Amino acid sequence: MKYFGFAGKIAHIDLSSQKIRPFPLSETYISKFLGGYGINNRLFWDYQAPNTDPFAPENTIILGTGPLVGTLFPGAGKVIGTTKSPIIATPKKLHFIDNAVVGSRRFGMMLKNAGFDHLIITGRAEKPVYLKITNDEIQINSAENLWGIKDIYETTDLFLHENPLSGILAIGKGGEKLVRYALALVDYSGHLGKFGFGAVMGSKNLKAIVTFGTKGVKVAHPPEFLKLARELRQKIRAVPLLKQFHDLGITSGWALQAPLVYEGNVPYREWKKKFGPKIWKKHKFQHNLACGGCIVACRTDFHVPAGPYQGLTSFTGHHFLPARVALRLGIEDPTLIIKLLDICNRAGVCFFTVGGLLNWITRHETDSFPREISTYLDLLEKIISKTDIGEIAANGWYPVSQHLEIDPDGFFEGRS
Amino acid sequence: MKYFGFAGKIAHIDLSSQKIRPFPLSETYISKFLGGYGINNRLFWDYQAPNTDPFAPENTIILGTGPLVGTLFPGAGKVIGTTKSPIIATPKKLHFIDNAVVGSRRFGMMLKNAGFDHLIITGRAEKPVYLKITNDEIQINSAENLWGIKDIYETTDLFLHENPLSGILAIGKGGEKLVRYALALVDYSGHLGKFGFGAVMGSKNLKAIVTFGTKGVKVAHPPEFLKLARELRQKIRAVPLLKQFHDLGITSGWALQAPLVYEGNVPYREWKKKFGPKIWKKHKFQHNLACGGCIVACRTDFHVPAGPYQGLTSFTGHHFLPARVALRLGIEDPTLIIKLLDICNRAGVCFFTVGGLLNWITRHETDSFPREISTYLDLLEKIISKTDIGEIAANGWYPVSQHLEIDPDGFFEGRS
Repeated sequence: MKYFGFAGKIAHIDLSSQKIRPFPLSETYISKFLGGYGINNRLFWDYQAPNTDPFAPENTIILGTGPLVGTLFPGAGKVIGTTKSPIIATPKKLHFIDNAVVGSRRFGMMLKNAGFDHLIITGRAEKPVYLKITNDEIQINSAENLWGIKDIYETTDLFLHENPLSGILAIGKGGEKLVRYALALVDYSGHLGKFGFGAVMGSKNLKAIVTFGTKGVKVAHPPEFLKLARELRQKIRAVPLLKQFHDLGITSGWALQAPLVYEGNVPYREWKKKFGPKIWKKHKFQHNLACGGCIVACRTDFHVPAGPYQGLTSFTGHHFLPARVALRLGIEDPTLIIKLLDICNRAGVCFFTVGGLLNWITRHETDSFPREISTYLDLLEKIISKTDIGEIAANGWYPVSQHLEIDPDGFFEGRS
Repeated sequence: MKYFGFAGKIAHIDLSSQKIRPFPLSETYISKFLGGYGINNRLFWDYQAPNTDPFAPENTIILGTGPLVGTLFPGAGKVIGTTKSPIIATPKKLHFIDNAVVGSRRFGMMLKNAGFDHLIITGRAEKPVYLKITNDEIQINSAENLWGIKDIYETTDLFLHENPLSGILAIGKGGEKLVRYALALVDYSGHLGKFGFGAVMGSKNLKAIVTFGTKGVKVAHPPEFLKLARELRQKIRAVPLLKQFHDLGITSGWALQAPLVYEGNVPYREWKKKFGPKIWKKHKFQHNLACGGCIVACRTDFHVPAGPYQGLTSFTGHHFLPARVALRLGIEDPTLIIKLLDICNRAGVCFFTVGGLLNWITRHETDSFPREISTYLDLLEKIISKTDIGEIAANGWYPVSQHLEIDPDGFFEGRS
């Protein structure tokens, strides 16, 4: 069968037996399930048994891309990760099946160029490993000199030095230690699966996946396809907000977005003054990062120009995230929020979840945990290393609410 | 005129006036001066006035590549930097004109692909800048958010995130502060100009040069050229030492090289036991780096697997360099030498010079400077920031010998 858009191949990698089985993508799946997202979910259905524990070797990870990824179609750079989430989302400890979708700079494009649309990952490696996926070939390599040693940024840089065009998906200490809201970073800037996708990778002793290929992606009607892609790019370029997206990330329109995420614990004007776009423009660094094929380039970097964290640069999707966490934690100095963001990024834990949990803990046990940066840094370190109260906090909302004896649904983020 | 091998263009960039003047490479120069090295020196002769102070805006930097760079010719990745060295090499404070040649992973190839064989850099920018050189275009951009903030590795990574195929030449704090033996790193791994090339860049407020281009390099007789290149590659592949080069860098043959660099202050067997190839293989990390077009891939990385510097990875040309500095300083723990190497790399100062100077100072003033790692770290920090005795040590051999009242030519590296 001849494939267009799709690479036409899926690989099942079992980390317990170290067996790798590539097989063709079936025509039925292509016609019945919509794009990478649809097929990802169908594959999960095929491979996952009911009642599987999220951290058991039997839990399945499906990682995939869609048919447009790797072509010149604008914005087609997404990667989809599907697995059973380790988040304890209800008192009954039921777990959700969850999908995470994030833009990738090269990972998706390179997975396709290496010949694969989807990866099915099961089992648990005996020792830490990473997957190296090049033209039609998959290697399971030792990651013992990365595990527990290199954070996500360092791991990504390391593989980039080896081959600067690789796509890289990696976890940090959060995933390694099974923090339940640990995520993976894709190509430095894409946060994949804050529901614990990184923790499931960690439970499999899987540190990273590196993709690179030169096979190309075929389209069925090149002239028509390219014409359509060109027209769409022109339309995107004409969007008046594009400049704003470049400035401060995808949700940069403060007037539109701010009211939706305002949490009411400080007066609105004060929040805007302290954490509005002007503040972040001052802390924006060098450039934006764009996903493969995308002309919006919405991932922005924030930077600490002076003070104890001088020189630190970290990436995020938009300035509302640090603005909201700062609002919750009552932090006034933007550089401190960038520091917290950076620790979360390097360890691969969800910054937004961390911000919320630190808020809960410090509001409810203010005597033991005064609401100041040293407390936040200490708690964050404890979460990532799962020590002391961090052991509970690393388990997420419900365990923490039980520990603090609060009703999570009744918690009001109002003025204090 | 049609050029083969050569890109055919030179650019004179004056940082004081911000003027950029491109002009064609003359046929006379091509026929009269051998390759990039020859033309580099002729251009320096053309532009430099006698008796110029190395740190004056009038001092000229010539940066160039040769006609084979950017082709498939094996090993052709070199970059040449020519300038008047700030090293105080004689009691009369005369300065040498010096050439530095180093392999580049992408810098040389990308300079050619951007359309330039040589750059002539004069003047001094008012504020820190970097040069961005893309297809036939040269921009002088602000580097104020890099200067004094980002070390060389961080600066390089930053530009690589923007464009992973860029060639990047950058200086660190050593060059910024005019340490006289400050060098530039080219593409992370090439040490250019330990005679102070980095300091001359620093004196011009020039933090980095970033190259990228897609113009290609033409050869006159492609089939014959490719045949020759292929034959040479086959010959290189047949060299029995190639595996050793991959293992531990270009001078990895201990049996051949060690006697040449043995300094006699510890018994030979003991040195080999402590710092022979076996030790470095244990500290080798992930991979080697290769220069553009090279199949030897001789730049190796060393890594700290545990202890206070766990996770640190730094690059060097070969394992003899840390082995010799360890020998001189009497350091027994390889991870401490890797730490010193890393500080030097990030700050862009010559590790070998630093090793020698620390040896002198701690041997002659052992009471104030006991020969132990904390002293070395402290002295190195003082050199890079030019504080206390670091101010003198940053000026290099002669000033230090005068300060210590020793005869540099009479200093014997014998057993203590």
